[in-house]
Amino acid sequence: MVVKVNENYLLLKSNYLFAEVANRLEKYENEHPDKDVIAMGIGDVTKPLPKAVIKAFKDAVDEMGQADTFRGYGPEHGYEFLREAIVKGDFEPLGVDLDIDEIFVSDGAKCDTGNIQELFANSNTIAVTDPVYTVYVDTNVMAGRTGPMKDDGMYEGLVYLPCTAENDFEPELPSEPVDIIYLCYPNNPTGSTLTRDQLAKFVDYARENEALILFDAAYERFITEDNIPHSIYEIDGAKEVAIEFRSFSKTAGFTGARCAYCVVPKALKVKDSEGNEHSLNALWDRRQTTKFNGVSYPVQRAAEAIYTEEGQKEIQENIDYYLKNAKLIRESLTDLGLTVSGGINSPYIWVKTPNNMPSWEFFDLLLNEANIVGTPGSGFGPSGEGYFRLTAFNTYENTKEAMERISKLSF
Amino acid sequence: MVVKVNENYLLLKSNYLFAEVANRLEKYENEHPDKDVIAMGIGDVTKPLPKAVIKAFKDAVDEMGQADTFRGYGPEHGYEFLREAIVKGDFEPLGVDLDIDEIFVSDGAKCDTGNIQELFANSNTIAVTDPVYTVYVDTNVMAGRTGPMKDDGMYEGLVYLPCTAENDFEPELPSEPVDIIYLCYPNNPTGSTLTRDQLAKFVDYARENEALILFDAAYERFITEDNIPHSIYEIDGAKEVAIEFRSFSKTAGFTGARCAYCVVPKALKVKDSEGNEHSLNALWDRRQTTKFNGVSYPVQRAAEAIYTEEGQKEIQENIDYYLKNAKLIRESLTDLGLTVSGGINSPYIWVKTPNNMPSWEFFDLLLNEANIVGTPGSGFGPSGEGYFRLTAFNTYENTKEAMERISKLSF
Repeated sequence: MVVKVNENYLLLKSNYLFAEVANRLEKYENEHPDKDVIAMGIGDVTKPLPKAVIKAFKDAVDEMGQADTFRGYGPEHGYEFLREAIVKGDFEPLGVDLDIDEIFVSDGAKCDTGNIQELFANSNTIAVTDPVYTVYVDTNVMAGRTGPMKDDGMYEGLVYLPCTAENDFEPELPSEPVDIIYLCYPNNPTGSTLTRDQLAKFVDYARENEALILFDAAYERFITEDNIPHSIYEIDGAKEVAIEFRSFSKTAGFTGARCAYCVVPKALKVKDSEGNEHSLNALWDRRQTTKFNGVSYPVQRAAEAIYTEEGQKEIQENIDYYLKNAKLIRESLTDLGLTVSGGINSPYIWVKTPNNMPSWEFFDLLLNEANIVGTPGSGFGPSGEGYFRLTAFNTYENTKEAMERISKLSF
Repeated sequence: MVVKVNENYLLLKSNYLFAEVANRLEKYENEHPDKDVIAMGIGDVTKPLPKAVIKAFKDAVDEMGQADTFRGYGPEHGYEFLREAIVKGDFEPLGVDLDIDEIFVSDGAKCDTGNIQELFANSNTIAVTDPVYTVYVDTNVMAGRTGPMKDDGMYEGLVYLPCTAENDFEPELPSEPVDIIYLCYPNNPTGSTLTRDQLAKFVDYARENEALILFDAAYERFITEDNIPHSIYEIDGAKEVAIEFRSFSKTAGFTGARCAYCVVPKALKVKDSEGNEHSLNALWDRRQTTKFNGVSYPVQRAAEAIYTEEGQKEIQENIDYYLKNAKLIRESLTDLGLTVSGGINSPYIWVKTPNNMPSWEFFDLLLNEANIVGTPGSGFGPSGEGYFRLTAFNTYENTKEAMERISKLSF
């Protein structure tokens, strides 16, 4: 016998988007060591963790150093103190009623959105918006739920819902039957949102078609407008058709500390081939207890501190800071005559490249001529071609400097 | 369309071993609130984290609270400082030469041993020792690499290598062709070990048959005897046929802090159906960058501190403490006329039940008559029936009390 590879992995495009960005940046910096490059590419926060979080984090580390307060293995789905804080802090204010055992704490929304697909048969048809956060696609490719990538940049067997300036970045309902729909709102990468009515259309579709929505709300904290739902469970009937993913990464600067959670309502059912119903909540619990050991205890205490009055105040200050950057980018580029969306309820600004320039060409132009690193829209899917993503996570000073540099370019 | 479940999940036995243990314990404690139950079941540490670890942990949390030292997303495979410390601290002293990019830091060996199977085609034949750490089996069931469980407690399509008192807990080489072999030494649950010569037989088998060994060395720190290898890479040629899993959980009390790593040598190749070779190191890197976001930065600094002189001294004291408990259990039970293995190079003591009593019956006897919780051997596989696992992780005082209680039982 010979050990055999999972050949689905061989269908993946060889270069992960951000790896290619990093490669080009490294090459440029090696050749131009004197240049001061401003990073507006990867969606990583820059503000330190709030003081309330740091204090809780350290106190919990101290507990781990004392015999009478030391904690070993914790519950795989998270400690009750954090699950309770989440239900009360994130959902009660929205009028959404959840039980704590519908909350599963994890070390990242990337892990959760990737791992969740393990619960579903390979025969399910998957729909994604296009452009899309590539993890949704790649994890389904790795699992064998697609064919190879076609010449148009789409994987065989996957249903793409285009989101472009033409439809104001609002995906249409699938025109062919699908079983599972990934939605991310506020959207990565476009920064666009769905109103309650727009999102309700998808919930209604899922209810009518016994489909499932995987709703990624990692950026909900950036919402500033009233008619944008923070949770899909604000829509009637969503608990029977949707799993929601949340993260402390962008909300509270936890990209390096690692904590997130997902909501799997007990009302969610999935069917086997004989038509018998199974609880997704129970299946996810089985998956997590078998393949995961829970989040570091001090990290969970740090996350809990976000929900204190002081914690809330501090994280809001950071969000406001990033939103100020977003506004500056949005307004500066609009003033230059560029077509721009996002940046109002999101740290992402989605720019139409001038003169329909290909995304990677615009990437090289910004890097070489203005020493700014962004992310080529085409890296997020075929409908991202001709677009470019900038993020609001740098300092205000650097963001301002970047806008000045861009203003000197001639397109 | 209707969203369809991954039916492989439905093949899993409904009760996870430790959940059933917890259920029976909870029932007993509710009915006997006055009884003082001693936990010797789940393999969880009890000693607090070493002072050197706590200091590094807190210092790193402080860094996360300052703008100039804050860290966001880290490398998915771990920071260089930790990977370097691992190579120098764990492998150089063994004469094993590894590159740092052969080390992948993660949040747990359970996650790693579960997730690694994603890299392999479902057509691979899997061998496990019996009894076995159930995660190896369950994750392959979930992936569809087995049929249903048969009446004898074995899953169809899986190859079981029995380890019982009859063969001194040394598995024979597979008598039918297999592609992937899970080995865990020092063994969970039996506490047994393989000598260099015994392990070399498996390495030779893998080399001759182009098979892969998944070697779980989570308990290597408990090894006290000279002829027992700490790493499979001490065996010539193992780098071409083995992945090794390590954990800080038992080594350094990290069960609640969460940090582990695995070694995927660059010499490891796997084949596709056309016979082309692919690097497992590259495939695992792709899996981890797509589905994982790295370990919490402060936790990685905490893990690094294990390798300082002070850290090494402190963790050795804890290991010695647990080994003293193990010796006490081993000797006490032997004095009572029970047949016992393990406990010399392992925190686990594997007891033959008296008079061939079924494992769960012995569980109930110990719980009801001596108020001691252990783990029924049958929960680890059919060859575990008639055995029972006790762990050395309680306090010395409680361990002594437990042995006194058992000495008063009549079998």
